[in-house]
Amino acid sequence: MLYLIGLGLGSEKDITVRGLEAIKTCARVYLEAYTSILMNADKESLEQFYGCEVTLADRELVESNADVILEGADTHNIAFLVVGDPYGATTHTDLHIRARELNIPVQVIHNASIMNAVGACGLQLYNYGQTVSLVFFTDNWRPDSFYDKIIQNRKLGLHTLVLLDIKVKEQSIENLARGRKIYEPPRYMDIATAASQILEVIENRGQGQLLSPLTPGIAISRLGSDSQTIYADSLKNLSEYDSGEPLHSLVIPGRMHELELDFLVQFCSDKEQFKSLASADDSVLQQRQS
Amino acid sequence: MLYLIGLGLGSEKDITVRGLEAIKTCARVYLEAYTSILMNADKESLEQFYGCEVTLADRELVESNADVILEGADTHNIAFLVVGDPYGATTHTDLHIRARELNIPVQVIHNASIMNAVGACGLQLYNYGQTVSLVFFTDNWRPDSFYDKIIQNRKLGLHTLVLLDIKVKEQSIENLARGRKIYEPPRYMDIATAASQILEVIENRGQGQLLSPLTPGIAISRLGSDSQTIYADSLKNLSEYDSGEPLHSLVIPGRMHELELDFLVQFCSDKEQFKSLASADDSVLQQRQS
Repeated sequence: MLYLIGLGLGSEKDITVRGLEAIKTCARVYLEAYTSILMNADKESLEQFYGCEVTLADRELVESNADVILEGADTHNIAFLVVGDPYGATTHTDLHIRARELNIPVQVIHNASIMNAVGACGLQLYNYGQTVSLVFFTDNWRPDSFYDKIIQNRKLGLHTLVLLDIKVKEQSIENLARGRKIYEPPRYMDIATAASQILEVIENRGQGQLLSPLTPGIAISRLGSDSQTIYADSLKNLSEYDSGEPLHSLVIPGRMHELELDFLVQFCSDKEQFKSLASADDSVLQQRQS
Repeated sequence: MLYLIGLGLGSEKDITVRGLEAIKTCARVYLEAYTSILMNADKESLEQFYGCEVTLADRELVESNADVILEGADTHNIAFLVVGDPYGATTHTDLHIRARELNIPVQVIHNASIMNAVGACGLQLYNYGQTVSLVFFTDNWRPDSFYDKIIQNRKLGLHTLVLLDIKVKEQSIENLARGRKIYEPPRYMDIATAASQILEVIENRGQGQLLSPLTPGIAISRLGSDSQTIYADSLKNLSEYDSGEPLHSLVIPGRMHELELDFLVQFCSDKEQFKSLASADDSVLQQRQS
């Protein structure tokens, strides 16, 4: 049996009781270590908590050597641990498909992920449109298709969850070209970088008011950990906001219901100022909808 | 302290270790018992698992008597348990706001909910548009605004999660009018009812091919429980599908990537037939996008 087990968001104790029981039956335990990180745990603390060895699975192992992970899973149990929920990344779907091809039964143990825990900022999940991803801009690669998706959502009055880039165990272009397995230090996009990149695209596109420096944004930092913070302000102010340690996500609200706004304003430094920002934004969105 | 604790989807063991530890510090434990149900657990099995008494909280208690729940939460811990994740329903946001007004600290312990666990059908979460809700049609109330939202999603090539109505502890109109606290037996919408209602609206609207009886749908039943099933077919065939015990959700795919379709076809009775259905649907969506 292959167990795909979600670890949730913060610490080793965010695993479910069922997930923990499953791990204890497993001959080998892998931790997927390149699409996300557990903020308050590492390999050692997990090993101590589970009482067994944990093998870090990098992109190469999962995407090119899945059969190594699955070896023997027809006769004993193997656990593959994923931060958040197991279906957060296509990679894990791949592993699931490969297991089925080998006639290995698969059981999934779900957990919270950013995709549902983002509800913590008070905007209702069913008022979100499609989720977008924002990657680190480089000198010659500044993809901006996320902009069109946010605009599409906002035209419908919907909120947008913006997932921020994580670079773990990435090679520089030079090292990749030369086949040298030397990896760059991990990088996690912070709120200021995200907001700045969005402002750059707004400036380039210059397509009116549907997104502007005064559009509200919600900085969600270390969601589900003890040091979780949520902070709402204009994109312009967020581009200078110190969001602290990773991980971060950003929400661009669409039209907010009164209850949503009531909940959100607890996360503002100046409630009245944010309310007038939100009200101005709502007028823009209302005009576009009608 | 008020703990808002997500229970996940299936059994008592789907709670997180941290959630379970929090409950054990609490003076009183409430279970929200009207927006969803745990499929493989009840009040008694939870009490046995937690080793403490659990009080069922119905809509009246939560929405009209929140202060009863919060009483004493300034000096000791109170747990409010929610199936799925605590931010799945506006009601729980209300309770959170009320606690803050009373200066009671609130801690949220997240868990899986349908909003992220729906990834189990193989369609990537970031390719979903807005979620819609489908309520039981009555003789004189057949709201169809969900139709426009599905169309909006499909025009963008996005998948739609359709949440199906749950009626727990509801009064008949007559009993409500007469103030009699007599409640109807619980009802959970099944896949056949959902698909039939959608087909009725398709028939009424008659607006072309963006939704038709041959549009694919994915029936997701008892997600996260031991008896979970996923079944993909046309909406027409789903309107005659026996989906078994609750709970159910329905997904209407948008444009599917190859990997998404590869994963999904494992859930079809006739893979080739479904692939041609999906291919025809993709042509329709592609035309509308271009």
